[in-house]
Amino acid sequence: MVSEVTKGWQWLMALPSVFSAKVMDTMSQLKKVGKEDPRRVVHSLKVALAITLVSLFYYVKPLYNGFGSSAMWAVFTVIVVSEFSVGATLGKGFNRGFATFLAGAMGLGSYYMVNSMSMGHIVEPILLGALIFLITAGVTYFRFLPQMKARYDYGLLVFILTFCMVSVSSYRDCEILDIALKRVITILTGGLISISVSIFVLPVWAGGDLHNLESKNIEKLGNFLEGFGEEYFGTSEVGDSNKSFLQGYKSVLNSKQVEENLANFARWEPCHGGFRYGHPWQQYLKIGNLSRQCAYRIDALNGFLNSTKTLIEIRSKIQEPCMKMSTETGKALKKLAVAIHNMIPPSSVDTHIAKSKVAATSLRSIIKTGLWEETNLFDVIPVLTVASLLVDVVSCTERLAESIQELATLAKFENKKHPTSPRHEETPQQHNSGPHHVIAIN
Amino acid sequence: MVSEVTKGWQWLMALPSVFSAKVMDTMSQLKKVGKEDPRRVVHSLKVALAITLVSLFYYVKPLYNGFGSSAMWAVFTVIVVSEFSVGATLGKGFNRGFATFLAGAMGLGSYYMVNSMSMGHIVEPILLGALIFLITAGVTYFRFLPQMKARYDYGLLVFILTFCMVSVSSYRDCEILDIALKRVITILTGGLISISVSIFVLPVWAGGDLHNLESKNIEKLGNFLEGFGEEYFGTSEVGDSNKSFLQGYKSVLNSKQVEENLANFARWEPCHGGFRYGHPWQQYLKIGNLSRQCAYRIDALNGFLNSTKTLIEIRSKIQEPCMKMSTETGKALKKLAVAIHNMIPPSSVDTHIAKSKVAATSLRSIIKTGLWEETNLFDVIPVLTVASLLVDVVSCTERLAESIQELATLAKFENKKHPTSPRHEETPQQHNSGPHHVIAIN
Repeated sequence: MVSEVTKGWQWLMALPSVFSAKVMDTMSQLKKVGKEDPRRVVHSLKVALAITLVSLFYYVKPLYNGFGSSAMWAVFTVIVVSEFSVGATLGKGFNRGFATFLAGAMGLGSYYMVNSMSMGHIVEPILLGALIFLITAGVTYFRFLPQMKARYDYGLLVFILTFCMVSVSSYRDCEILDIALKRVITILTGGLISISVSIFVLPVWAGGDLHNLESKNIEKLGNFLEGFGEEYFGTSEVGDSNKSFLQGYKSVLNSKQVEENLANFARWEPCHGGFRYGHPWQQYLKIGNLSRQCAYRIDALNGFLNSTKTLIEIRSKIQEPCMKMSTETGKALKKLAVAIHNMIPPSSVDTHIAKSKVAATSLRSIIKTGLWEETNLFDVIPVLTVASLLVDVVSCTERLAESIQELATLAKFENKKHPTSPRHEETPQQHNSGPHHVIAIN
Repeated sequence: MVSEVTKGWQWLMALPSVFSAKVMDTMSQLKKVGKEDPRRVVHSLKVALAITLVSLFYYVKPLYNGFGSSAMWAVFTVIVVSEFSVGATLGKGFNRGFATFLAGAMGLGSYYMVNSMSMGHIVEPILLGALIFLITAGVTYFRFLPQMKARYDYGLLVFILTFCMVSVSSYRDCEILDIALKRVITILTGGLISISVSIFVLPVWAGGDLHNLESKNIEKLGNFLEGFGEEYFGTSEVGDSNKSFLQGYKSVLNSKQVEENLANFARWEPCHGGFRYGHPWQQYLKIGNLSRQCAYRIDALNGFLNSTKTLIEIRSKIQEPCMKMSTETGKALKKLAVAIHNMIPPSSVDTHIAKSKVAATSLRSIIKTGLWEETNLFDVIPVLTVASLLVDVVSCTERLAESIQELATLAKFENKKHPTSPRHEETPQQHNSGPHHVIAIN
């Protein structure tokens, strides 16, 4: 009994330290979230700004006298519509505005229709109820359509909301038209405030994010391949502890969802930076798919890095062409990443791809010469698998380069004398490598 | 001029047929969506039912007299909270209820605090505005924390919404406490109606969906492997046009997001069917990860199916063990799928895995015997790559089996005499294969 009391006491005494540890943990996580993307801090302040602005409707007497408690809908709209990127905010704002207008009109229409029949207070609500049942069931089902879900899901939800609200409350409220008008105006005001803050205060463009994401993902694949040769053939120094470049590709494997969301948002955005309205965002999804194809192969290659490393004498036979293939495709991928990032045609890439194809050919001839006869063929399999995966990666990179070339044509990328923000450390001639010359491949 | 008019006229005449084609297309898509998962139709009717029920608050006089226009919040809550699965509905309902309560209390508190200082109608709104700015900025930033985003994102949004609403409107409204009380009661009522309809009318359980998804995904991998041997070694009949089993695995590659969403929803669900509250849903995510590992290898194997098929004489040398490995792992995966589906320990799987490991060993000895000396080693590479990928798949399957065994232990799967819903056509002894016997592997 006494020991239980002691235990309970100890638990109680430990509570503050457990709690403070939890708080410290959360604080460090909050810090990390902000460090990963400082625009998140800015976004929070932007949302707060928009809400504080819109709450002026309540505090400033002349504004309040105009709208009364309908002003609440402006606050409401700002909170719900304010998303991280401009595209998402515009999409939600458009969805909300259009759906409110349409559903409001339909709700009023159905009320007047039922009302004009003047069938008394028993039949009327039953008719209205049946109408609400049918329309909500239909629209809810409509939300399952994939193309609706991707772009108009929020609009359909708001449609149901507004339709029910108008057609239900019209049954009790008399000044329904006046209320509806005020509400539409406040929702428009809220949407405008939200969109203005989103666009004019340090905007975050979904399109730019998608653009940078593709560039970064391809760079990660390049980083892996540039380092892979040294890692696998054991020429890198043992004490080298910074192997993060070998893990970077993993985020590419599951990037599909993020890319699709960003592409959906980007379509709403007006022209900004180097992007016109109607920039070929779909092409980025194609590039993303090819990057993932490449990442799957790299994942398989990575598996061989961790397997037993005893067969150095076998590896050394194909070391040269394999290292060449790996390094050259790595360089090609990194230049493709730079080309996307700086919006220039991927001109200097073809030489790297050509070199890696030459290496693939010399690999074939090495294997054909039968240097392997004295070795156990079974020991050769993993080495040959690595070689064939590298050949796969070369053809993946080739297709990726074609796809990025297509993007450059569609989006009218041009060579610039002075790239504005060179993220990569490079000598200038890499950017100004003259007109694009296609090398016939395949 | 005349031709333009003619063109315009033709365009106008074509409009109805274009429009009707569009409508027909949408109709067929709607039909397809319903066929894919008939529960979607049921869900639409359920939502409509809940909304119609809650709109009684408006139509029935005694109910309306009690709540007045606050009844709108019940309609509102039902529309927003009604999600496809029970878990998602419960999660949203809990988030909404808890956030409304907390934010309402804090909003009132901050209003009374500012009000009690009685600093006049200039300073008061400034103080309230500053408070709103700080709290909305903080909570918006909090939404970026990954663990918050996964489970409480909606709650944090509702918190901002309610806090602003209460603290702003309290500045103009006098009967704020009365309004707040009515609102809380209507929101609770709406939430309860929505959750009741979700649970008691043909419920859709996210947990059950996750469970079936894993089972189905593993079955798809099994289908591929069972058929792969015949496809690759060309023993299948040419006229056989039904190759859909070779494409099924592709949906597994990108299943991560769906699985994580379902696992998040499933945690909210009470016990149902064979699932207790606190069922090891995390283990399903591990199983999902291993399935994807396996699917990546299968994707690589699939690439070899479409490559040139000239080297039949080389393939035939390793045909027997490779076909054995492929078929046996295929069988093992399909039995694992059945074990998950029927919630029984995966007992009869080990024999298949053991057989495929025996095949792998015999593959090694075939390769060691040097049957290859007369052939060009370069032609051998793709065949050896396929073989080594198959060996990879065997070890993937082994890990998958261990992980599913772990699930069976955690979730206390038991052998049943009469499985309730055997989805697969099997002989009964496959289910009643006696106590689980572990074969030492690795």
